[in-house]
Amino acid sequence: MDGGDYTNAKYITIKALENGVTIIGLTRGKDTKFHHTEKLDKGEVLITQFTEHASAIKIRGKAEIFTEYGELKSGDF
Amino acid sequence: MDGGDYTNAKYITIKALENGVTIIGLTRGKDTKFHHTEKLDKGEVLITQFTEHASAIKIRGKAEIFTEYGELKSGDF
Amino acid sequence: MDGGDYTNAKYITIKALENGVTIIGLTRGKDTKFHHTEKLDKGEVLITQFTEHASAIKIRGKAEIFTEYGELKSGDF
Amino acid sequence: MDGGDYTNAKYITIKALENGVTIIGLTRGKDTKFHHTEKLDKGEVLITQFTEHASAIKIRGKAEIFTEYGELKSGDF
Amino acid sequence: MDGGDYTNAKYITIKALENGVTIIGLTRGKDTKFHHTEKLDKGEVLITQFTEHASAIKIRGKAEIFTEYGELKSGDF
Amino acid sequence: MDGGDYTNAKYITIKALENGVTIIGLTRGKDTKFHHTEKLDKGEVLITQFTEHASAIKIRGKAEIFTEYGELKSGDF
Amino acid sequence: MDGGDYTNAKYITIKALENGVTIIGLTRGKDTKFHHTEKLDKGEVLITQFTEHASAIKIRGKAEIFTEYGELKSGDF
Amino acid sequence: MDGGDYTNAKYITIKALENGVTIIGLTRGKDTKFHHTEKLDKGEVLITQFTEHASAIKIRGKAEIFTEYGELKSGDF
Amino acid sequence: MDGGDYTNAKYITIKALENGVTIIGLTRGKDTKFHHTEKLDKGEVLITQFTEHASAIKIRGKAEIFTEYGELKSGDF
Amino acid sequence: MDGGDYTNAKYITIKALENGVTIIGLTRGKDTKFHHTEKLDKGEVLITQFTEHASAIKIRGKAEIFTEYGELKSGDF
Amino acid sequence: MDGGDYTNAKYITIKALENGVTIIGLTRGKDTKFHHTEKLDKGEVLITQFTEHASAIKIRGKAEIFTEYGELKSGDF
Amino acid sequence: MDGGDYTNAKYITIKALENGVTIIGLTRGKDTKFHHTEKLDKGEVLITQFTEHASAIKIRGKAEIFTEYGELKSGDF
Repeated sequence: MDGGDYTNAKYITIKALENGVTIIGLTRGKDTKFHHTEKLDKGEVLITQFTEHASAIKIRGKAEIFTEYGELKSGDF
Repeated sequence: MDGGDYTNAKYITIKALENGVTIIGLTRGKDTKFHHTEKLDKGEVLITQFTEHASAIKIRGKAEIFTEYGELKSGDF
Repeated sequence: MDGGDYTNAKYITIKALENGVTIIGLTRGKDTKFHHTEKLDKGEVLITQFTEHASAIKIRGKAEIFTEYGELKSGDF
Repeated sequence: MDGGDYTNAKYITIKALENGVTIIGLTRGKDTKFHHTEKLDKGEVLITQFTEHASAIKIRGKAEIFTEYGELKSGDF
Repeated sequence: MDGGDYTNAKYITIKALENGVTIIGLTRGKDTKFHHTEKLDKGEVLITQFTEHASAIKIRGKAEIFTEYGELKSGDF
Repeated sequence: MDGGDYTNAKYITIKALENGVTIIGLTRGKDTKFHHTEKLDKGEVLITQFTEHASAIKIRGKAEIFTEYGELKSGDF
Repeated sequence: MDGGDYTNAKYITIKALENGVTIIGLTRGKDTKFHHTEKLDKGEVLITQFTEHASAIKIRGKAEIFTEYGELKSGDF
Repeated sequence: MDGGDYTNAKYITIKALENGVTIIGLTRGKDTKFHHTEKLDKGEVLITQFTEHASAIKIRGKAEIFTEYGELKSGDF
Repeated sequence: MDGGDYTNAKYITIKALENGVTIIGLTRGKDTKFHHTEKLDKGEVLITQFTEHASAIKIRGKAEIFTEYGELKSGDF
Repeated sequence: MDGGDYTNAKYITIKALENGVTIIGLTRGKDTKFHHTEKLDKGEVLITQFTEHASAIKIRGKAEIFTEYGELKSGDF
Repeated sequence: MDGGDYTNAKYITIKALENGVTIIGLTRGKDTKFHHTEKLDKGEVLITQFTEHASAIKIRGKAEIFTEYGELKSGDF
Repeated sequence: MDGGDYTNAKYITIKALENGVTIIGLTRGKDTKFHHTEKLDKGEVLITQFTEHASAIKIRGKAEIFTEYGELKSGDF
């Protein structure tokens, strides 16, 4: 495996705007299952790369999301 | 397989604007079938890469979609 | 096969502006045949890469098409 | 063969402005012959890559053509 | 041979402004001979790559030519 | 392992705006666990790369965060 | 030999502004000799790459020349 | 090991604005420990790369920090 | 030898502004000798790459010279 | 070792603004020790690359420092 | 040896503004000696690459020098 | 050794503004010693690359120095 490259993988920044924001990593590969669930409380920030194991990220709850193509807000405003 | 590269694969961001938005990954390869279906409720966000298994993404329902070439809205406005 | 590269293949975004928009993948290779046909109803969006199996995409019906070189509308306006 | 690269080959977008627009792929290689002929009716769009088998594309009839270096119209205006 | 690279070779777009425009591919290699001659009638468009077999293109007759470095007109205006 | 590449991995800069800001590295790989926790007091700065071992970073407490896509503040303002 | 690369070699576009414009390819390698001479009549266009066999191009007569670094006119104006 | 690449690794510039600014290199790898501590007096400048051994840098005390993404000040202002 | 690369070598364009402009290719390698001398008459243009055999070009007489870093005039104006 | 790459390593330019400016190269690798100390008198300039042996540079005394990310002054102004 | 790369090596353009401008190539390698001396008379232009044998160029006399980072004049003005 | 790459190594241009400007190449490697000293008289220009043997350049005396990151003057003005 090429260690240098995945340390430079793309990343997403998520800031929770309320308690209990849920960030779910969905598995890469044949089956798309929950890989990992991270809970954020209000004000907490998660900066997360795509990895060998997670190719999709699902966000529930009010949060600011910063991506390569600009920023957006999740949650039902 | 080269782990570093696919962690940097292109990704699409989808924000549901109503309950029940459906995001369907269509299989890469000889046959184009449903690979995975993800349901989003209003306000939820999915950030998903193209993968070894999915080369097309179909979106049903009202959603904002952020791509490399700008953003658009799905759903019958 | 190099998994990382084709996950970064170019993609086209198509939004149906009427029911029954047809998106046909034409086969890469010696023979150019229909590879896959996808039907979109009004408001549905398909984001699709060129793949090992499809090197051309044909669109029938009213749709907005977003490409690397700008956007256009298909259908008889 | 390197699957990732040719999925990223350059592509041309053609929108027919009348019925019966003809798009002819000419063969790459020692002999330049017709490889494939695709007919488009008014409003139909074809997005096609250069491939291992076709290195030239000939367009007959009224159409809008979108290329890497801008757009032009075919047909006798 | 590396299939992916030559599908991304540079291309030239030629639009005939009169009947009988002649596009001649000249052979790459030790001898520079006619490789292929393509005739275009008024309004027809040819989009052609440089190939393993042709390293020069000669255009006779009134045509618009779109290249990487801008556009020009052939023919005796 | 390719030593040169990971020394150039992406990095995040975090400046604590209060005592006790917590920066948690989450493990890359099958399991997403705490890899390392670093405490910052007010005014301290941490500049940290993604590594072979950490693919996500969680920040608790008031801090300024500088990323490739702009800056944001964590903590409950 | 790497087919993909030389199909992407740099090219020069020459438009003859009078009859009998001469374009001479000079040989690459130890000896610099005439490799090929192409005659253009008024209005004809030649688009030619540098090749394995020609590393210099000499132009005699009135012509417009389009290069990577702008355009110029040959001939005694 | 690839000598050329790590000489081009990213670097951070730190200028101490008071005596006793502490710059701590944290170890890359499974364990995140102190790798090296460098003390700067007022006006001294340290320009330091990320290395095979250090993937994070912690700064205590008043300093100006120049990074790829702009500059900031550490210390409790 | 890698055929594709040297066909893309840098080139210089020289337009003679008087008869008898001399362009001298100086040999690459241990000894720097005259490799080839090309004479241009007024209005003639030479477009020449650096090659395996020539790493320097000397120009005598009035000429316009177009290089990667702008244009200049040789000759005693 | 790859000779070409480290000749292109990043470099820092330092101009002494007083006598006795000290530039200390700190060793790359497990131990961070003084590798080399260079003294500059007022007006002298040192242009130095990061090397296989030095991954950090410490500057004492009044100097102007030119880096990839702008310039700064060392010394207690 | 990689023929393609050094044909694309960086080059310097020198135009003599007086007779007897001297351009001296200094040897690359352990010893830095005169490799080659080229004399230019007023108006003559030399375009020269860095080579396997010369890593420094010394210019004596009034000349205009065009480099990657702008132009300057040598000689005692 | 990779001949093509070091011919493209970074270079520095130095113009002496007084007689006796000294340019000292400092050795790359474990020991940092004087590798070569070049004297410039007023108006002389030296264009020098970093090499396999020299990773630092020291300039004494009044000179203009042109680098990748702008220009500066050495000497005690």
